[in-house]
Order: sequence, then C-alpha cells, then structure tokens
Amino acid sequence: MRILITGAAGMIGRKLTAQLLVDGHLNGKKIAELHLHDIVDAAVVGAHSHVSDLAAAGSAAGLVHIKPDVIFYLAGVVSGEAEANFELGYRVNLDGTRQLFDAIRVAQISPRVVFTSSIAVFGAPFPDVIPDEFHLTPLTSYGTQKMMGEALLADYTRRGFFDGVGIRLPTICVRPGKPNKAASGFFSGIIREPLAGLPAILPVPRDVVHTHASPRSAVNFLIHAAGLDGNSIGPRRNFTLPGVGVSVQEQIDALGRVAGAKAVGLIEERPDATIWAIVKNWPTRFNAKRARDLGFVAERNFDEIIQAHIEDSTK
Amino acid sequence: MRILITGAAGMIGRKLTAQLLVDGHLNGKKIAELHLHDIVDAAVVGAHSHVSDLAAAGSAAGLVHIKPDVIFYLAGVVSGEAEANFELGYRVNLDGTRQLFDAIRVAQISPRVVFTSSIAVFGAPFPDVIPDEFHLTPLTSYGTQKMMGEALLADYTRRGFFDGVGIRLPTICVRPGKPNKAASGFFSGIIREPLAGLPAILPVPRDVVHTHASPRSAVNFLIHAAGLDGNSIGPRRNFTLPGVGVSVQEQIDALGRVAGAKAVGLIEERPDATIWAIVKNWPTRFNAKRARDLGFVAERNFDEIIQAHIEDSTK
Repeated sequence: MRILITGAAGMIGRKLTAQLLVDGHLNGKKIAELHLHDIVDAAVVGAHSHVSDLAAAGSAAGLVHIKPDVIFYLAGVVSGEAEANFELGYRVNLDGTRQLFDAIRVAQISPRVVFTSSIAVFGAPFPDVIPDEFHLTPLTSYGTQKMMGEALLADYTRRGFFDGVGIRLPTICVRPGKPNKAASGFFSGIIREPLAGLPAILPVPRDVVHTHASPRSAVNFLIHAAGLDGNSIGPRRNFTLPGVGVSVQEQIDALGRVAGAKAVGLIEERPDATIWAIVKNWPTRFNAKRARDLGFVAERNFDEIIQAHIEDSTK
Repeated sequence: MRILITGAAGMIGRKLTAQLLVDGHLNGKKIAELHLHDIVDAAVVGAHSHVSDLAAAGSAAGLVHIKPDVIFYLAGVVSGEAEANFELGYRVNLDGTRQLFDAIRVAQISPRVVFTSSIAVFGAPFPDVIPDEFHLTPLTSYGTQKMMGEALLADYTRRGFFDGVGIRLPTICVRPGKPNKAASGFFSGIIREPLAGLPAILPVPRDVVHTHASPRSAVNFLIHAAGLDGNSIGPRRNFTLPGVGVSVQEQIDALGRVAGAKAVGLIEERPDATIWAIVKNWPTRFNAKRARDLGFVAERNFDEIIQAHIEDSTK
C-alpha cells in the first residue's frame, strides 16, 4: 500500500499523516510507503517528502511516478485567499487539480482518489435543511473551483482513469494553532482563543447557523472515504458529509458549559463586512443522508466538538 | 451595438446570424457590427468573419479586441464527439470557454455573454419532472464540460468581469440538413428524413421521453437571453429552458398526424448500444419555472415543432 497526501503540510494533512503513521495500515493493508506533497516541506519521520507546485507543467507527472494506491488530495488555497487573489485561486484550485488528475490518467495507475471538497460549493438561498440533490451555486471563487474539481473527479472516475470519492467537508472546528486566511476562521477562533485564556473576535451575527466537524472527524472521514467500495457509491461521486449544525450562539453556549462564563466573556463582537459578505451566503444545515448511509459519522453536538479539541490539543 | 457569435458556422449560429441580419437590431439598438467566429469560415454578406481555434493561446484575446457588447457563445464539440475524443472535448469545451472568459476579463469590456449550456448537465436517476434546484451530475464528458462552463460563467459574472447568462437548451429538434455526431441526432432524423421521403433509423426504445425545442425557438431563446436585465436574474446565472417533453412514440404519433402513415413507415428500429448508453442517462422533463418566469417561451406540443420545421425548411 503506497499512499500520497497532497497539501500534506496543512492542518488536516498533518493530522492525517500522524494517524496513518500510528495506524501503520490503511484499508486493512500495511502501509509500505507514505508520500507527503506540498509547496513547502512537509517532512515527517517515516514518510517521504516532495516539494513542488502541482499546477506547474510536469510537476504532477513526476509525483504520480510513485504509483500510489490511494491519493488524499488536500491541496488548495483557502476561501479567503481564493477570493482575494483571483488568478492564484484558479491556478492552484482548478489547474492544480486538473494537472494531477491528468497525470494519473496518462500514467494509467487508477488509484483511489479522495478529493476534499467543501460546503462552499453551495450558495444562498437555501432550504432549512439542504438535501443531497440540491444544486451547486457557489458564491465564492473557492466554491466554484471546488465544484469544478468535483465535476472532473466524477467524469475521470466514470471514464475509469481512477476511482474517485469527493467529500464535502463541513467547516473544521476547532482548528488548532494560529488563524489562517479562511473566512471561516472565526468559528474556531471564538472557541480556541477563550479556551487558552485569550480574547477572540466574532465578526458575524450570533444567529448565523453553520455545520461543523472536528479535525478528528475530518481524519476519520478521509480514512473512511479511502476504504469505500467504489461500486456501492455509484456514479454520483461527490456528496456532503455529516456534521453538527449550530448557531454561533449555540457554539458560545457550549463554550460556556465546558469552560465557564469567563471564557465566554473573552469573545468580542466586531462586525467585519468582508467576512460577512462571504459567510452570509454559506449554507446552514445538511441532510447528508448519502454520506451517513455510506458510514460517515460525525460528532452529535457542539460540546463533543469542544471536548475533542481539548483532548487533541493536550495529548 | 457590436455582436460576436462564436461557433457561428454551426446550425444554430447560422440561423441566429440570419435572424440578426433580418432584424438589424438587438435589445432595441442598431447592430453596427456583426462578427462571426468559428474554426471554419462562417462568412455571410453583412458580417465580419474570424477563423481561429479559441483554445489556442492568444486567439481569444485577439477576438475580444473588437469589443463586443453581446457575445453569443455557441462554440463547442458535440456530445458524441466529446465522448469519443476525451482530450479534444476538454480542450474545446473547457479550455476554449476559459480562454474566452479570461480574455474578456483581461480586456475589461464587460459584455453580456450568452452561454449555451445543455440538459446534458443532468444525469440519471431523475424525478419525473426535474426542478430548477436539482443537482448537476452529468454522465458524459460533454455534460461535465458544460457544467464547468456554467460554473465559470457564474463566478466571472459575480466578479463583474462580464454579465453572463447560461441557458440549458433542450435538444434542438427538428435539426435541418445532414445528421451530425450528436448522440441526440436521431430525435431529428426520425422526423426530418421521413418528411423528405427518406428512411430513418430509430436506435433507442419508443418509450424514451425527452425534451425538445425547434431551431426557431433556440434562436428566440438566444435573442431573449441577450436582452434580459442582469439584476432580475440574480446570482444563479444558469437555468434550464422550457421545451416539449414527449416520448419517441409521441413524436412518431405527431409525425403521423402531420405527414401520414407512409412517413411513419419509413422509420426503422435498429437498436444501437453506444447511443443507448448515452441517451438512457439523459433527463426527460423539466419544470423550467425560472426560465418561464424570465419570459422564455417554447412550442406547446410536438406537432408545432414539426410545423416549424416544415415552414423553416421551405422558406
């Protein structure tokens, strides 16, 4: 079993790498080689590191020479960055994806490809609960690029070039470490910072409802997606994952239950028009029936998400 | 008013050109220049002809130098060809679209772009009547490429690079002239050939239901789309057009009413596995409420579609 992770230096990539190294196997098979790729060195003891720009000509072809059985495709620039830098977003999120998919096609290696899409493929207005058959009308360039990646994944799978699974991750919360440029960063910040005794900014109204899953769940989703039977999925290769749909106020209430009123008091409301312009068009709750039927499991409530953060950040 | 038609040498392109030359105006403004583009010379008296490959570097940039106010984007390879030739389909239908859209973006000319998408963006299974909010899960490379073009159109419009409208044309029936490589060709063939006293092949079962509109309606759709108020459309820039949803048997019944049993007798059933593999996954009927609300009008029944063909092919 040879595994390739692209975007391995990112938060999810590092957690997935750590989990695979602990497990030592994937889909019941021993991991013989674990290859990490990113535009910066994602070096970890026990894995091979590859540094290149996937969108550059020839880069992806070089990478698929290692003939991975499973590729976790996590590479990409985040929503805020893709919105701020139009050309960079399309270059990395669309051209990079296509270069990798085409390199796989030409190399005829037919791996399982787990593609991380996003709920940013959806755009307002929405029904209260978004069903699996709801159309994709993204209102960000990031969401557009993910939608196009999904389309390619499904067609390349149908053509038999590889065996793809596209999973629309909910917002990952609580993200550890420093804030990144994702417009969704505050959803984590208002929990992570107060838990560490630090102030946090809330840039959107408290009645914003959004769907979350922990980093731990994200890793579980990826590993579960790697092991799915392709025939049981059928031709609709992209679907929305389950998560915890809560309002910002419900997030804050959970923080209060777990960490007390003092932590809650560290949250300062400071409306940000740029973030609001993006977040107001984001989806709220999902049915995610297909993913649940395929065995994907998330947290049951936001208290569990906070507990997962506390456990994972102290171990 | 300067107009550019890409794919102008195709059937719809030629009919649209003829209509615009007769009208002499578009959106209430005099047509000062009509530019026709295709990979072959689409020359017509009264219009400028441009011959190039839109997917080739620099080609689109040269074309947008004419600063069109309205672009009708009809270019592309058809479904059968995009399925038979994977690389050609992506090159023309995806790269060509992106090259043109990017050339418009860089030139900062912000025209109305009318993009012809297709009901091939949908893939089975379907509800009996497909609503406007149904997801796109194409089961052909052609449908995938059109879906990706729609995604780009919506994002480039949202960004203010141009004012796009993407219209999913039903199958155009009755197509005049010779058969082309579209998998849908037989829907026209079984009407056009018998009306001309010639034999026709029916490669699929008679209970196949499909949605049709006449070439005349297609031209009306394009001209109507060119004149829509962008603000009234909102951010969901792509939608399905109305048409006549009938079974092949109902098509044949209409042929019998218009042209008699002798014409019907010229249809020979000869199942074709390749065509069936594509057509069986095509959608049947649509709600098309948004398009109707925006003023798009199609024929009411298949008899009207046959009559339109007879009138347009004898004038």
